[in-house]
Amino acid sequence: MTPSDYRARIARLNTRLNAFVDLSDEMSGAGLAWGVKSNIAVCGLPCTAGIAAYRDNIAANDAEVVRRIRASGGDVLGTVNMHEGALGATTDNAAYGRTQNPWRLGFTPGGSSGGSGAAVAAGLCDVALGSDTMGSVRIPAAYCGVQGHKPTTGLVPNEGVLALSNTLDHVGPIARDVRTLWRALHVIAGWGEPAELAPIELQGLRIGVWDGAGKVEMTSSVRRGFDAAIVALRDAGVRITNLEPPAYDYGKARRAGLLISEVEGAAIHAEQLETNPDEFSEAFRGLMAWGVAQSSSKITAAYEHVAEIRNAAPKVFDAVDVVVAPTAPQQAFSFDDPAPADQADFTAWANFAALPATAVFTGFSGDGLPLSLQIIGPTGEDKLMLRCATAMESIFGAPQLPPEFA
Amino acid sequence: MTPSDYRARIARLNTRLNAFVDLSDEMSGAGLAWGVKSNIAVCGLPCTAGIAAYRDNIAANDAEVVRRIRASGGDVLGTVNMHEGALGATTDNAAYGRTQNPWRLGFTPGGSSGGSGAAVAAGLCDVALGSDTMGSVRIPAAYCGVQGHKPTTGLVPNEGVLALSNTLDHVGPIARDVRTLWRALHVIAGWGEPAELAPIELQGLRIGVWDGAGKVEMTSSVRRGFDAAIVALRDAGVRITNLEPPAYDYGKARRAGLLISEVEGAAIHAEQLETNPDEFSEAFRGLMAWGVAQSSSKITAAYEHVAEIRNAAPKVFDAVDVVVAPTAPQQAFSFDDPAPADQADFTAWANFAALPATAVFTGFSGDGLPLSLQIIGPTGEDKLMLRCATAMESIFGAPQLPPEFA
Repeated sequence: MTPSDYRARIARLNTRLNAFVDLSDEMSGAGLAWGVKSNIAVCGLPCTAGIAAYRDNIAANDAEVVRRIRASGGDVLGTVNMHEGALGATTDNAAYGRTQNPWRLGFTPGGSSGGSGAAVAAGLCDVALGSDTMGSVRIPAAYCGVQGHKPTTGLVPNEGVLALSNTLDHVGPIARDVRTLWRALHVIAGWGEPAELAPIELQGLRIGVWDGAGKVEMTSSVRRGFDAAIVALRDAGVRITNLEPPAYDYGKARRAGLLISEVEGAAIHAEQLETNPDEFSEAFRGLMAWGVAQSSSKITAAYEHVAEIRNAAPKVFDAVDVVVAPTAPQQAFSFDDPAPADQADFTAWANFAALPATAVFTGFSGDGLPLSLQIIGPTGEDKLMLRCATAMESIFGAPQLPPEFA
Repeated sequence: MTPSDYRARIARLNTRLNAFVDLSDEMSGAGLAWGVKSNIAVCGLPCTAGIAAYRDNIAANDAEVVRRIRASGGDVLGTVNMHEGALGATTDNAAYGRTQNPWRLGFTPGGSSGGSGAAVAAGLCDVALGSDTMGSVRIPAAYCGVQGHKPTTGLVPNEGVLALSNTLDHVGPIARDVRTLWRALHVIAGWGEPAELAPIELQGLRIGVWDGAGKVEMTSSVRRGFDAAIVALRDAGVRITNLEPPAYDYGKARRAGLLISEVEGAAIHAEQLETNPDEFSEAFRGLMAWGVAQSSSKITAAYEHVAEIRNAAPKVFDAVDVVVAPTAPQQAFSFDDPAPADQADFTAWANFAALPATAVFTGFSGDGLPLSLQIIGPTGEDKLMLRCATAMESIFGAPQLPPEFA
């Protein structure tokens, strides 16, 4: 589809989804058609981070990743919705509206990059940029049944991102197929023209399976879907070991990631929290206030746990080539249901440990909601992740458009 | 020399140096003879971290690195002196005495692993373990004219170390020649028997020279020595580019490293600071108290600057194979002179960025004090560091014993 086709689809279909929030009228034409998460500066459009206080914060410049998109001939269609302040994974945003899951209206697309996941899944753009602090690219990719990649820490610049956490945030792409993900990664990492992406030889590939047994409670659909995916990989000849990420204490890690996000987020939003407190939700304001009120030793302990996890991670890849885990312990859920606390338990490890990680669509559960697994690899091995993803895509199939959006 | 020879030398020479503080009487015999910094647990000996409050803290177990030493057949001769709490680089320790520089009595051996540097340089052991938060292995190696290595973050376990900073500390070896350093690294990293260490081919090696021009004030002796070393490397065929570590703001980085050490150190020593405040120096106590009194946003900003530096570092090694810098901006100085604030300006980058770094002896300045340069490389490339170090050692010569200790 051309950017014009996408613009026509947005005009026709976006009201059902509320994925795009602001549209650009500058057309370019040649390259990919992009949606950009609304915490990444697109010159001339509001850069809100999904927070009401920034409604009139019109970006004066493009973020570095957006400059790279334009330099590649890409077309920036507009900005897409997100969870308030990137701190949450439902994209049920009081200020900018709920974004719907294209596979089931009334269900969350995940978050915080929910607009990115929904826009890509519904075919409103080729690729959308998200940002991922503890899973915010991969969770919406999983819930919306598309492919998403969190790059190695430092590979893609954060310049021009209205961040939640400067230490944990990663800009990453979401697309309907791995080939497009690969092209998009080349653009935002500044790698130039992409070479062909050869699928990895699955025969003999050493996979560490991380299923969180006894630690993370997966829904039975996710459990069955993940087990079936592992059987399919085993049939393709991979060698399986079971493992847990070293030094990764689920509860402690979850609290550490949240506290770091709160104190770093509070610093980033300090001015607006001071002058426009009512333009944040009470929940968001409360989290920020709680974070900064914690003792220095508690905050320090959070950074220490993250460092411990990061330092212990490289050894995992002495014994296995890649780690495979469910992307999230659950599938998309109704906006009427509370958000589970464990949404990011499988995704946050890669953020803490600076590892590249790719969410790959693996089909549907019986009730028609998408399933996903995550490939996690050694630092700097983003290409290996996508070579694995493309091999798996040829087993599980690339996502199609949902019937309602076909 | 055998461990018995070393024990005899310690009995004869240690009083001049005050390098060893506690001796072990368990002899093993076959492997290397080791000194262990007094913040690393050696079963049955005091583990003090150079702090008076821990005078009676007898280690009930060996630290993991000490277990590995024993498993390799190594002989642990005893523990060596250090700067109080590992927070400082002179080893002028009020509780356990000053350690002297074997090349000039009355001068500092550097620190915080000053006892390790002095013991090795004076030939009281084959190798000594130090710990390095911002340069504490490499600075004493430089001041004492020996070879020292700070491993890649996470390569050598910190278990059983009475640390200063859990996020920045690295246990590393100091030895008189690179071959011994290589053997020692195999032991503490758990790599098994070392293979031969082939020197790197210097012809064509791409070296990024980091001399801190306009940012760090080197003494004229260090400047001349470093320039001469670079000329020698150029003559050997290396290709030179000049560079600065990306995102590394000297002042901000120095303050960030110090603040992180203070808040993490305060947590580690919380109990003793509470119950035995007088058993810390006033200076140390003051730093800890200052650290924990800082706002959460200031502490968070320190961790963020470190993360920024770490994330930006890998790209350096797209353009160069290794970085070469002076180890410290000055040589050993008199205990009568104040400690310069910039001692760790060239070393801290590797701690922040999780990079391996090796201090290599490059000869003497005209006044007979040792000179040193530092090789810094990509994460995980410890072997490459030592292959470079052994090639440079063949140019600059391995350190000999000082005449007084020959």
